[in-house]
Amino acid sequence: MKIALLSVTKSGLKISKQLKMKLSQDPRIFQVDIFHKNVKETLRRIFDDYDAIIGIMAMGIMVRSICGLLSDKRRDPAIIVMDDAGKHVISLISGHLGGANDLTLEIANLTSARPVITTSTDVHGCMGIDALAKKYYWKIKNTDKIVKFNRALLDGAKIIIESPENLEYLFNDQLFRKSYMIKKGEDKIIKAILDKDEIKIKPCRLVAGVGTKKGINEEKIIEGLKKALSFLDLPLERLDIIATGEMKKGEKGIINASRILKKPLKFVDLNDLRLEDTHSKSSFVEDKFGVGSVCEAAALHVAGRGSRLILRKTSYDGIAIAVAVSREKVF
Amino acid sequence: MKIALLSVTKSGLKISKQLKMKLSQDPRIFQVDIFHKNVKETLRRIFDDYDAIIGIMAMGIMVRSICGLLSDKRRDPAIIVMDDAGKHVISLISGHLGGANDLTLEIANLTSARPVITTSTDVHGCMGIDALAKKYYWKIKNTDKIVKFNRALLDGAKIIIESPENLEYLFNDQLFRKSYMIKKGEDKIIKAILDKDEIKIKPCRLVAGVGTKKGINEEKIIEGLKKALSFLDLPLERLDIIATGEMKKGEKGIINASRILKKPLKFVDLNDLRLEDTHSKSSFVEDKFGVGSVCEAAALHVAGRGSRLILRKTSYDGIAIAVAVSREKVF
Repeated sequence: MKIALLSVTKSGLKISKQLKMKLSQDPRIFQVDIFHKNVKETLRRIFDDYDAIIGIMAMGIMVRSICGLLSDKRRDPAIIVMDDAGKHVISLISGHLGGANDLTLEIANLTSARPVITTSTDVHGCMGIDALAKKYYWKIKNTDKIVKFNRALLDGAKIIIESPENLEYLFNDQLFRKSYMIKKGEDKIIKAILDKDEIKIKPCRLVAGVGTKKGINEEKIIEGLKKALSFLDLPLERLDIIATGEMKKGEKGIINASRILKKPLKFVDLNDLRLEDTHSKSSFVEDKFGVGSVCEAAALHVAGRGSRLILRKTSYDGIAIAVAVSREKVF
Repeated sequence: MKIALLSVTKSGLKISKQLKMKLSQDPRIFQVDIFHKNVKETLRRIFDDYDAIIGIMAMGIMVRSICGLLSDKRRDPAIIVMDDAGKHVISLISGHLGGANDLTLEIANLTSARPVITTSTDVHGCMGIDALAKKYYWKIKNTDKIVKFNRALLDGAKIIIESPENLEYLFNDQLFRKSYMIKKGEDKIIKAILDKDEIKIKPCRLVAGVGTKKGINEEKIIEGLKKALSFLDLPLERLDIIATGEMKKGEKGIINASRILKKPLKFVDLNDLRLEDTHSKSSFVEDKFGVGSVCEAAALHVAGRGSRLILRKTSYDGIAIAVAVSREKVF
């Protein structure tokens, strides 16, 4: 996730700087840039370059400045406003699909600001179909039906999730249990069903790229994968594939972990790894293999063209893990 | 003040109805209308007809819907959003000049919602020059300097208010004391001075229209005026003129009250009263004088062309009082 912080006052800039430091610790966040003053012009310039834009300023300035820039709830970045005394942090635009609500909660956690979320499902303690899809990296085909499904759900209706795959792990999610049921389906894709209406859903491919020192055993690797997924607030079951570089072909730990977890393991050729543009760069690995980060490159390669990292390289005890998701925009 | 309430969900509509009932008790509020669904189209239709628009809905819906309608902070209505569980009420647009912040606080008071105000002066416990002007019904000529003055004030600067009139009563206002000083001036208008910069200010004319039964004494009338002004969160000193109908020329109470308070008293001809379009209509008064409300008509007439009621007829113990303010938009 790439985040822009915008401020107009001295105290706003101070908050921006503190927030940048804190947000940069989050392995899901790859870049945090600070902009000061010239709000309107800056927004026009950077609007499409960031996943989230956080304005430390009065609501009115932000609203008036983004008006000409908003296009579509499926494409617009998350827009968040925090007052420049840090009292409230408010999710403004793209609450669900753009992740503004989650980021608002994270910022509230990192600071002493109170989160303000106004989307109807959330204020009534429900998980809308768009929030569900966002959380588990599912693509929704017919987004025009989201409002109808969410409204029914607020009225107490249960939505059936019909899937060819085992999605039992979703029941560990309290908000899921409240509004959804699961049914085994025959079709290849997932369907959310409400009476005679349905929403078509495709899970994106979630790939964990793994790099290890020699001789790391499977328990440690499984533990590392669990930790990595938990950063994304996901259970290990959601993972689709484990990927690593061809130089790890002899590593029993990875091979056994893949077998135990029943997740396919892909070894990526060094030449393919070298083609990927990684976020993390280790000069040691770079010198040895010509790759910035083996785990990131492997994850990106297996997640395919148009994929993106959602967890940058994180290291635990001799293991480095990154997570990539396949192209999300096209159904 | 005319207020529009907009909702999209069932629970939003329920909140609208409760809010309408509560807001209608406020004598500063003359009309509260409820609209449900079709947010974008409704807003386009009603945007210029209301002083304040309150959306009981997710922030994103409101922001996306007003984008094409906003023009200028001196003209746009106050825009407020409340989530449809009534947890937060958020001042969005026209916080100061449009009064959105004050209305947000009032709604929070009337409900269990927490107010969210993001304007920099307010979150830092200061009263900006625009908020000061709004509160005391002053017109600001050079609004382009507001930001500069407010920023200085946030940095701890003191702004000098130079006035030909005695404005000592402002010192009862704690927020005023914090950031302003008063100086006796020679010029006819008020000036806010910061170093070599100045903002020109003209107070609007504030007129209390009074109607009484026969023989009401001055103490009661003064008490009534105090109460009326306190609804506007103003001290009695801010009042410019007392107005009543010519049929009250023999009423000692009003005449003495005017003398004691040192506020000029104007008697308005019946024919002039009849020309005013009052908000309140008493069929008794209508039958007797051909006027809907003597106090409202007198206040409006003396406040002049383009004036408006800011407090509709309120009755206390045989006295009816309304307050009008002279034209605010033109300096």
